[in-house]
Amino acid sequence: MHSIQDLQNIIDKAVRETEYPQEPKELYQPIAYLMALGGKRLRPALVLMAADLFGGDIQEALAPALAVELFHNFTLMHDDIMDKAPLRRGQPTVHAKWNESVAILSGDVMFVKAYKMMIQVKPEILTDVLEVFNATAIGVCEGQQIDMNFENRNEVSIEEYLEMIRLKTAVLVGGALKIGALIGSANKTDADLLYQFGENLGIAFQLQDDILDVYGDPIKFGKQVGGDIISNKKTYLLIKALALAKGEELNQLNHWLNISEFSAEEKVNAVKKIYNNLGVKTLSENTMHTYAQKAMDALAKINTPQENKQVLEAFADLLIKREN
Amino acid sequence: MHSIQDLQNIIDKAVRETEYPQEPKELYQPIAYLMALGGKRLRPALVLMAADLFGGDIQEALAPALAVELFHNFTLMHDDIMDKAPLRRGQPTVHAKWNESVAILSGDVMFVKAYKMMIQVKPEILTDVLEVFNATAIGVCEGQQIDMNFENRNEVSIEEYLEMIRLKTAVLVGGALKIGALIGSANKTDADLLYQFGENLGIAFQLQDDILDVYGDPIKFGKQVGGDIISNKKTYLLIKALALAKGEELNQLNHWLNISEFSAEEKVNAVKKIYNNLGVKTLSENTMHTYAQKAMDALAKINTPQENKQVLEAFADLLIKREN
Repeated sequence: MHSIQDLQNIIDKAVRETEYPQEPKELYQPIAYLMALGGKRLRPALVLMAADLFGGDIQEALAPALAVELFHNFTLMHDDIMDKAPLRRGQPTVHAKWNESVAILSGDVMFVKAYKMMIQVKPEILTDVLEVFNATAIGVCEGQQIDMNFENRNEVSIEEYLEMIRLKTAVLVGGALKIGALIGSANKTDADLLYQFGENLGIAFQLQDDILDVYGDPIKFGKQVGGDIISNKKTYLLIKALALAKGEELNQLNHWLNISEFSAEEKVNAVKKIYNNLGVKTLSENTMHTYAQKAMDALAKINTPQENKQVLEAFADLLIKREN
Repeated sequence: MHSIQDLQNIIDKAVRETEYPQEPKELYQPIAYLMALGGKRLRPALVLMAADLFGGDIQEALAPALAVELFHNFTLMHDDIMDKAPLRRGQPTVHAKWNESVAILSGDVMFVKAYKMMIQVKPEILTDVLEVFNATAIGVCEGQQIDMNFENRNEVSIEEYLEMIRLKTAVLVGGALKIGALIGSANKTDADLLYQFGENLGIAFQLQDDILDVYGDPIKFGKQVGGDIISNKKTYLLIKALALAKGEELNQLNHWLNISEFSAEEKVNAVKKIYNNLGVKTLSENTMHTYAQKAMDALAKINTPQENKQVLEAFADLLIKREN
């Protein structure tokens, strides 16, 4: 079995070695730029890990792994336009550095490139792999739309929120693993179990993201702690707090959600205090651990030697205990 | 053999009967809306025509034909954002009716739906079909980018213009036909010849578009005649006129290209007069006929009974003699 670090290095090397056509430069430079910004390469590493779990060939899984990374970055390129985000990984977003048209069209080409990499799998699994990839892509788009719709809604339930993050984040984690499983010649039952592992882990991953945004160590987190509070983002913590708060505490929370002029530090501290009073951090962690446990249960049922599963167990552990 | 009208009806019925998920409605309503706006359904009809040419099954070609129509409409949805177009087929564009984010994301989903339809071909031709589809998609995106770049350039050569329309318009005509040929179990030589037929016909089609925009019958054309002149669009006619005009005539042409305040009617008449003096219409028609002839030569070389080719010959004739 290969270590996570090994697999991330293989991906990183392949990303760095990928060459794009020279012209039209407005299409290809943004792809190379965004792919070079880095990131943890976790999703493509999952394709390799899954293939490896079933004794598949890592080299055979490399093109589909890059397809997953291209797809993920394509969604970032388009999401950043919709979210009017100026920065991605600390650098200007593509629409900010070039313009919106470039980010739309370059993203479209990136998506085609993802399919070009994906169809390099063996012909006998091509239809199955593409069915997973298409379903994943549709899920991610639906999740993004639901997330945008939440911005314009007053009330969002915990169930709706969990369904949104399942689509926006978790189906890609599950999809990447299932594609790897198919490359490793896993049977349908095991491939589906690995998908379940990934989807539940993906939900846990996003819940951890929500928690870190409020409770992360400012030095280790790498982003502004409290960003979600400042922007009123409907996270698991906020939705839970709105459901639990009563009387003056609810008034206070709504006050901070409704005022447009405020000191960021003051708002973050005030909302965090309400979260602390309501025990929202522990509730979020409990839910995260429930999903992490579901993931582990699915992994345990997969019919491969226990020692092969250690890398994925370590990976799950890493995601849940991460600090950034 | 099925007539063109028959095939267009089959497509139209299938488009009307396509159902989309209810939610999120911001993703699926725009797809249904744009697909229902109509259009000639020529590109999907070509998939069916090509399958039919080689004795393939029309029903088997229907899903890939719809994939081609979905892809074409996806490119329109995104191009309309980039071109800031308010209208498409006389109705509000998706970004105008909803908003830009909806048009970006709904377009992305539409593209995935196109792949979902396309992968319904038989597994033994899936890789070949997707290679054609991916190459086509990349060509169309490159063509759109080059076309946008032309807007900011002073000089564009005839060769550059022909390469742009080859990518933006003609590769999809060729690609649709080649996919149909593969479904009809054509051999590689015949599939490539049919691609050549389509690509050359697509170039002729766009040249005819350029000519009709200036010389079309206002009643039959369906769009404002002279629109390209009003917007200084670098068409075959304008590029040719700029290459041929000399002295006072060139000054006049540049005058109309540079002034920002003008009567549309006066500008169209003045530029058209220059085109007439330079014989630009005939030169454009000659080039169009050259490409149409190349298309016919490729078709003639295909190893199928002559009578099978009549529908495609009629189709080519229709495109070149059309008045809208």
